[in-house]
Amino acid sequence: MSHKTYVHGYSKRESERLSDQAQTLTALLHGDTWYSPGSQVLEAGCGIGAQTVILAKNSPGAYFTSLDISADSLQRAGLTIKNEGITIVSFLQGDIFHPPFEPETFDHVFVCFVLEHLAEPQRALERLRLLLKKGGTITVIEGDHGSTFFHPDSQYAQKAIDCLIHLQRDAGGNALIGRQLYPLLVDAGYSDVQVSPRMVYVDASRPALVEGFTKLTFTAMIEGVGDAAHRQGLITKEEWEQGIRDLYRTAEPDGVFCYTFFKAYGIRT
Amino acid sequence: MSHKTYVHGYSKRESERLSDQAQTLTALLHGDTWYSPGSQVLEAGCGIGAQTVILAKNSPGAYFTSLDISADSLQRAGLTIKNEGITIVSFLQGDIFHPPFEPETFDHVFVCFVLEHLAEPQRALERLRLLLKKGGTITVIEGDHGSTFFHPDSQYAQKAIDCLIHLQRDAGGNALIGRQLYPLLVDAGYSDVQVSPRMVYVDASRPALVEGFTKLTFTAMIEGVGDAAHRQGLITKEEWEQGIRDLYRTAEPDGVFCYTFFKAYGIRT
Repeated sequence: MSHKTYVHGYSKRESERLSDQAQTLTALLHGDTWYSPGSQVLEAGCGIGAQTVILAKNSPGAYFTSLDISADSLQRAGLTIKNEGITIVSFLQGDIFHPPFEPETFDHVFVCFVLEHLAEPQRALERLRLLLKKGGTITVIEGDHGSTFFHPDSQYAQKAIDCLIHLQRDAGGNALIGRQLYPLLVDAGYSDVQVSPRMVYVDASRPALVEGFTKLTFTAMIEGVGDAAHRQGLITKEEWEQGIRDLYRTAEPDGVFCYTFFKAYGIRT
Repeated sequence: MSHKTYVHGYSKRESERLSDQAQTLTALLHGDTWYSPGSQVLEAGCGIGAQTVILAKNSPGAYFTSLDISADSLQRAGLTIKNEGITIVSFLQGDIFHPPFEPETFDHVFVCFVLEHLAEPQRALERLRLLLKKGGTITVIEGDHGSTFFHPDSQYAQKAIDCLIHLQRDAGGNALIGRQLYPLLVDAGYSDVQVSPRMVYVDASRPALVEGFTKLTFTAMIEGVGDAAHRQGLITKEEWEQGIRDLYRTAEPDGVFCYTFFKAYGIRT
């Protein structure tokens, strides 16, 4: 399928991008995620293990089962975890919609940057809920590309971002899913749902984020869909190049860049 | 001037709106603003005193001088302060660009929801800097209407918001100023500038914000410019009504609303 050429996470540069992103954002996104010693945690959709390493380091007494549909990603995740000397993670290949587990197997479920790629995110959350013991929790983290704004403002940069939103929608995903976590978790049957926004605010006083987020994470991600956007005729080459230039422009000393992730908790009652 | 009919803060309903807003957002915006006993604080642009009350209550040992260009606003601010039994605030009519004070008069300057209305915000910040003693601080709080996003998404709601942005620009102001506070303060000569975003995230688990912010503050503010938007032909009546309906739609149990204020600090060295 044509969208396979665009979905992020599968090329070498994309992998490096995800790794940069994970390091820069660890404190903001994961600082308040930890699991009690002895708890059984399912990481649904672990990809190449960028979050797995953080999870395992934050909760060295817990046991993690990290599921992914891609054997290639799992192999790389396994290598990363091994290189870190981490032994509390088991990897398993499988489909989030047909998870290879008995009901009520886990104390906690963790889902990060996965729902955005699914055509049926609510159904995925419903399936995962059945895997939780009563009283168990789910933690979900997703971005929202529609939350992006910056200075100087630029219609071309916005148009380039809209290309990614469009392509992700064509591929059955939803790049605006962050803002929808509250109704999604409630409708999937979770209780006591709480959502907190995590804005990445970047100005010149935060040079690590200028490099690690504005340039290496967000703008690199947008750049990655340039060919697909051109092939589909979503934008002219000139507009695209101006848009990318304008995104890098926000990383100059007088520029500002804002993007919001959302983190949601819910309980299976 | 035609824009006078739109600028918010001058009608009864608008006053009530500002009062609701102040109460709902106090903790988020002002929780970390307090001044040492004995310090002299200039509130530049106090309007009807919505922030003045909060400032004075947070710092009962400080002395406040609250300046505004509107005699009518000052009269109402004075009444509010008197009704609260507060005695540490002096009101003064004057122009922020020609402030009636000697240089280096104040320990601190506080500016909230003012720069968005000025054609020359940087010049205002430069003028205010001269009123600070060396080592004195400025605190600036501004919103950013371009930070708004919500679920369900709606192009009509966005178009209605764009009308306010457009009208405010026509009136010489800037509804997108929040994101620009960092470069504005740096370019106005302040040191150690730090900006923190304050997102108002609203879902059904936060009913006070659904009422107090999504409906009574933000959507009411947008509704307030409907006539002006129609007169200028910025939007059709049908689109407008759909936009307002869609904004209220985000206050339903499965809706979500996000808006970001920015708070900046700087020092005069």
